[in-house]
Amino acid sequence: MKATVYVTIKENVLDPQGNAVQGSLHTMGFEEVGKVRIGKYMELQLDTNDRAKAEERVKAMCEKLLANTVIEDYRFELEG
Amino acid sequence: MKATVYVTIKENVLDPQGNAVQGSLHTMGFEEVGKVRIGKYMELQLDTNDRAKAEERVKAMCEKLLANTVIEDYRFELEG
Repeated sequence: MKATVYVTIKENVLDPQGNAVQGSLHTMGFEEVGKVRIGKYMELQLDTNDRAKAEERVKAMCEKLLANTVIEDYRFELEG
Repeated sequence: MKATVYVTIKENVLDPQGNAVQGSLHTMGFEEVGKVRIGKYMELQLDTNDRAKAEERVKAMCEKLLANTVIEDYRFELEG
């Protein structure tokens, strides 16, 4: 089974990396770019076929390691 | 219009960050985790309504700044 995890910075938290990318894009002539938010995208191969169990386990991984839930949100999809 | 960009490390390129996360997850008791690959997830607000033009522009942004096409792949979605 494969889990795809998306970790994004919460809406009301500053994203300095996103601001830097926005500034660079403007400098390069992409003036149409407004707000830029940068997050993480993770693919995990899981050695299990129990979808309910996998869902619970991936949630625990996100809460404990993959996301900093003080400033980040996460969501994930399971496939296979 | 909103663009969502996914940047991932190419299949045959080493991902030390992914390996480190995999090791940490194992240490924490998540032994079912196999390969971990870590990429970037970006959301860009675009001040345009021309979808074809936006597609071309976001492709240029990816090629020039957002992805290192030597070692990374990218894909993006447009909405709105």
